[in-house]
Amino acid sequence: MAKKEISQGVILRLPRYYRYLEDLMDQGVERISSNELSKRMKLTASQIRQDLNNFGGFGQQGYGYNIKNLHDEIAKILNIDKDHNMIIIGAGHLGQALANYTNFRKRGFLIRAIFDKDPTLIGKKVGDVEIHPMEDIDSFVKDNAIKMAAVCIPKEPAVKVVEQLIADGVVGIWNFAHVDLEVPEGVVIENVHLSESLMRLSYRVGEKYRERTEK
Amino acid sequence: MAKKEISQGVILRLPRYYRYLEDLMDQGVERISSNELSKRMKLTASQIRQDLNNFGGFGQQGYGYNIKNLHDEIAKILNIDKDHNMIIIGAGHLGQALANYTNFRKRGFLIRAIFDKDPTLIGKKVGDVEIHPMEDIDSFVKDNAIKMAAVCIPKEPAVKVVEQLIADGVVGIWNFAHVDLEVPEGVVIENVHLSESLMRLSYRVGEKYRERTEK
Repeated sequence: MAKKEISQGVILRLPRYYRYLEDLMDQGVERISSNELSKRMKLTASQIRQDLNNFGGFGQQGYGYNIKNLHDEIAKILNIDKDHNMIIIGAGHLGQALANYTNFRKRGFLIRAIFDKDPTLIGKKVGDVEIHPMEDIDSFVKDNAIKMAAVCIPKEPAVKVVEQLIADGVVGIWNFAHVDLEVPEGVVIENVHLSESLMRLSYRVGEKYRERTEK
Repeated sequence: MAKKEISQGVILRLPRYYRYLEDLMDQGVERISSNELSKRMKLTASQIRQDLNNFGGFGQQGYGYNIKNLHDEIAKILNIDKDHNMIIIGAGHLGQALANYTNFRKRGFLIRAIFDKDPTLIGKKVGDVEIHPMEDIDSFVKDNAIKMAAVCIPKEPAVKVVEQLIADGVVGIWNFAHVDLEVPEGVVIENVHLSESLMRLSYRVGEKYRERTEK
């Protein structure tokens, strides 16, 4: 299997395929045709066949896809076939929301610690994850070989903390701070800019109103 | 100004321009050249000039952009030059995180109520926003002309609640549930699928490791 040949477009769609396959597995379904999957996912059946052909053509004429095989293959490509030790920076509502997502654990994202600057929170737990002081990030990341971190603090402190995380060996930053962080070659960053998402919604709501007015 | 001619690509970049312009205003900066903005935003100066020319060419040779004008013009296009009454469905950590974002209020997104099914939460407040029972969604949305709602509950109840919201007149759904909701023509949906975002990060972390191994 030539992993390198999978296009970026397919990669972007993979997490969604994974979510649908996971749902089907939870429902006890073992096989699905491209037509049936196409109805559920609102993609054309030919798009689905083309996408999934990248993974060795598990679909068989008149027989459909073996859901578990496809699920496991996509998990391998997404790098979620193994566990990842993560930490969360910031024990505010958002940090606590992330710590509580049972879906993350199910997919092998193991939250090992939360860090916060508020001394009254230190030692408390969110679910079974303990809140540690910010000063301990350095030693914790090194001692526990943490490679991924979710950053849920305001933008000013985020810049400094991310520098520290990278110096300590973190290679994947999940950034919720309202700032575009600069990371060196070899480190990846995935931004979740919630206010930008809300502005896009607002734009599209406005667009709908304009359409109505013009009719 | 021909709003219709603005391409989707530009629209997708607008919230980010808005964020940078807002930061500059907060810092008391009044004008900026396309070169300086290009350095900050890591876009080429020509891309910036091309994008911002859509809004009447506020940039003047040797003089730069008037930040406030540009900011206000983009706000108008993004439909955030007026207030929006919003509600949040779900008073879990994520719902509370959204209710607490001061940035949203600053941009005119006014959270009027949070709804939850947990009877012990009813009447409590998150910031100054009160938690109401789910049964009151119908009357609240109608009485307060709510047009936008953030959905922060599990996927099974989300499907039903969104149907109700739309029947009551909501036209913009900000969906955090792990499900692709179907909405009728005239209603827009903006999805924030956090676990898909985390899987993309995980994929890219894996890619970096493969690159290192191959070197």
